[in-house]
Amino acid sequence: MTAPFDVAPLLAPDTPAPAVKWNGFPKYNFIGGHIAAEQVPVDDLVAAATAVLKREGAMLAKYNHTGPLGYRPLREFLVGKLKSHADIDCTADEILITSGSTQGLSLVNSLLVGKGDTILVEQETYGSAISRLVKIGVNAIGIPLDDEGLRLDLLKQKLEELQQKGIKPKYIYTIPTIQNPTGAIMGEARRAALLKLAAEYGVMIFEDECYSDLIWTNKRPPSLYAMAKGEGVIFIGSFSKSLGPALRVGYIVAKWPVLSRLQALKQDAGTGAIEQMVLAEYCSKHFADHVVRSNKLLSSKMQVLREALAEQFGTAAEFGDPPGGIYLWIKLPENVDTMKLAQAALAAGVSINPGPEWSVNPVHSRNRLRLCFANPEPEAIKQGVAVLAEVCRREFGVPLRSANIDKL
Amino acid sequence: MTAPFDVAPLLAPDTPAPAVKWNGFPKYNFIGGHIAAEQVPVDDLVAAATAVLKREGAMLAKYNHTGPLGYRPLREFLVGKLKSHADIDCTADEILITSGSTQGLSLVNSLLVGKGDTILVEQETYGSAISRLVKIGVNAIGIPLDDEGLRLDLLKQKLEELQQKGIKPKYIYTIPTIQNPTGAIMGEARRAALLKLAAEYGVMIFEDECYSDLIWTNKRPPSLYAMAKGEGVIFIGSFSKSLGPALRVGYIVAKWPVLSRLQALKQDAGTGAIEQMVLAEYCSKHFADHVVRSNKLLSSKMQVLREALAEQFGTAAEFGDPPGGIYLWIKLPENVDTMKLAQAALAAGVSINPGPEWSVNPVHSRNRLRLCFANPEPEAIKQGVAVLAEVCRREFGVPLRSANIDKL
Repeated sequence: MTAPFDVAPLLAPDTPAPAVKWNGFPKYNFIGGHIAAEQVPVDDLVAAATAVLKREGAMLAKYNHTGPLGYRPLREFLVGKLKSHADIDCTADEILITSGSTQGLSLVNSLLVGKGDTILVEQETYGSAISRLVKIGVNAIGIPLDDEGLRLDLLKQKLEELQQKGIKPKYIYTIPTIQNPTGAIMGEARRAALLKLAAEYGVMIFEDECYSDLIWTNKRPPSLYAMAKGEGVIFIGSFSKSLGPALRVGYIVAKWPVLSRLQALKQDAGTGAIEQMVLAEYCSKHFADHVVRSNKLLSSKMQVLREALAEQFGTAAEFGDPPGGIYLWIKLPENVDTMKLAQAALAAGVSINPGPEWSVNPVHSRNRLRLCFANPEPEAIKQGVAVLAEVCRREFGVPLRSANIDKL
Repeated sequence: MTAPFDVAPLLAPDTPAPAVKWNGFPKYNFIGGHIAAEQVPVDDLVAAATAVLKREGAMLAKYNHTGPLGYRPLREFLVGKLKSHADIDCTADEILITSGSTQGLSLVNSLLVGKGDTILVEQETYGSAISRLVKIGVNAIGIPLDDEGLRLDLLKQKLEELQQKGIKPKYIYTIPTIQNPTGAIMGEARRAALLKLAAEYGVMIFEDECYSDLIWTNKRPPSLYAMAKGEGVIFIGSFSKSLGPALRVGYIVAKWPVLSRLQALKQDAGTGAIEQMVLAEYCSKHFADHVVRSNKLLSSKMQVLREALAEQFGTAAEFGDPPGGIYLWIKLPENVDTMKLAQAALAAGVSINPGPEWSVNPVHSRNRLRLCFANPEPEAIKQGVAVLAEVCRREFGVPLRSANIDKL
């Protein structure tokens, strides 16, 4: 036998803890941004794959056969979609296809921030954006939110305070259209005021629109990128929430002086071509109709979750009725520690995002949690919420009494 | 109009220069690791895509539906392929699917090296491996090669010298099976001696097998990973050279104490699922036969390039007859500076890899170059080499006289 090799003495500093072995998804899965199985248009994807591979499959022999920005027909589809949806005027050469919007986050961070830099984020925000910033050693300052998103009075105060200390934040990261996790949409007037403020202090805006296709009414204000004509704004989007997160395809929109630098940082020899080709072929025919259908399904699932929460938690759970998205942001009584709740719930087969994972203010988020409702079937949503309520009552004494539901 | 925003004052330190706009491929493209269009099995890929998407397409609604190591049927295919091809005994849980083997390079570097660390590489090696190490600030020391790859006498000498200085190199990066760029295959005895040496000095081996499917005889020694039973070795491979580089699918094989740490570093929310699913479906039926067919094509193209070089450069170009791969490593007369030649050739429509981009010893590689022959048609290989010879003669006076060929 060969002796086991100990890698520990060779590790680079600050490597994360090893992964634990994966044991499958929990029975009631309310995390992870999965979408509904019915949202995946399987037959149309098969037709798209067949058409595009027959026509252009031989081009897989080359890296980036339509250039390093990504598959050109997909970028051309996006030009039209971004115009009609987000009011963005851009060319196909102002779009960089990325391997998921998570790669967009990494590239923008590589471009702008290093250890010790300061940035501003929404106090509650995308957990994976936070964890990336923590890993780099960035000082991410949270700005509290209201029903329209970022509170500009508090943002201005913080910008002023930082300026007086001689600190220039690199960017303001915002999800203004279906905020993650609150689901808020920032109105047009506040968007204009935000852009004015950012320009005044010379700070870039990093606008994340990963969820903006999922609006029940399909109505929304123009994107910050559109309103600023792209100056001082970097925009990212994704196909994960409309067509499937297992497709690792996202995009960055930026003016060329910024995009050319992001392209130089993208050292992965391209994003998967089959996925880009299938998406371009599919989306050019079906995307608009598909989104309308998906949103009907998602809005009905959201109501299932809201009703289940009301039934199981009664007044112990506070939550809104967001205009879109795949999650609810829920406030439980003050004594509930959702980090502990998450552990206990997982042991009972229910996964949740505890508030502190989705916030830079662990005190404010201590008794909050995020539940994603897109993937579980309606019956599983009801059962999962019942189990969660039972675990919560056992651990924290709330909700006070159990609803009258079928036990599993 | 909105005023242009100047991003320069906000950039992180050491960001690379902006990309220049892409203007299409050069007419005679001898770089980039593209493969032959005929190598892409279009009809079989269409059939595979149809079958797997119909059966499992709805699973695209979940991230990593068979776990964070990647699509399980693809890992299971690899278990069999690695056993029969490279003599590796491993389980599907010792394989991490990556977004191209380039992601493998990045992950291994993240795991093991930081700025100022020392590693050992083959003096001539994969250009993108070198550029990544330069970017991190790693001290990559080159070990000269012979017809079998790494010269172990010089490796031992260097290991000894470093030990005396108190420097422990983190890993030895080697491409022992169809070395890039020389095409050499390291024999089994030397492999055993290399492993012994690495163990003696406590250095890991990082074995890159991206080209090992492309061996004309399909015969090869066991991989270093196999011989070491995985202890102290990290192995990476790719589908880029057998099925298409635009498919961004590679893999890492390592024992769990190492692989679990690499998985923790892979923060991209998974590698594209459609590509993994199509590959698994295709490869389980066709991979072995496909490789045999591809190699016939590639070996004939290599002879076209060798003959064209002999015709156009005569004795001015020295090169071998490698047992596989998609490139030739060529030595020109001492006075030729291939960095300058590459620029002049590109202006004439011919792209080449100048030696210094594929070597950590710019003196030794100054008059060398790499030509990839897989993508251009045989006629384009002949014409491109003729143009290259003409440019070389104009710039450096060699080859002395022009061959009697049709001018373009």
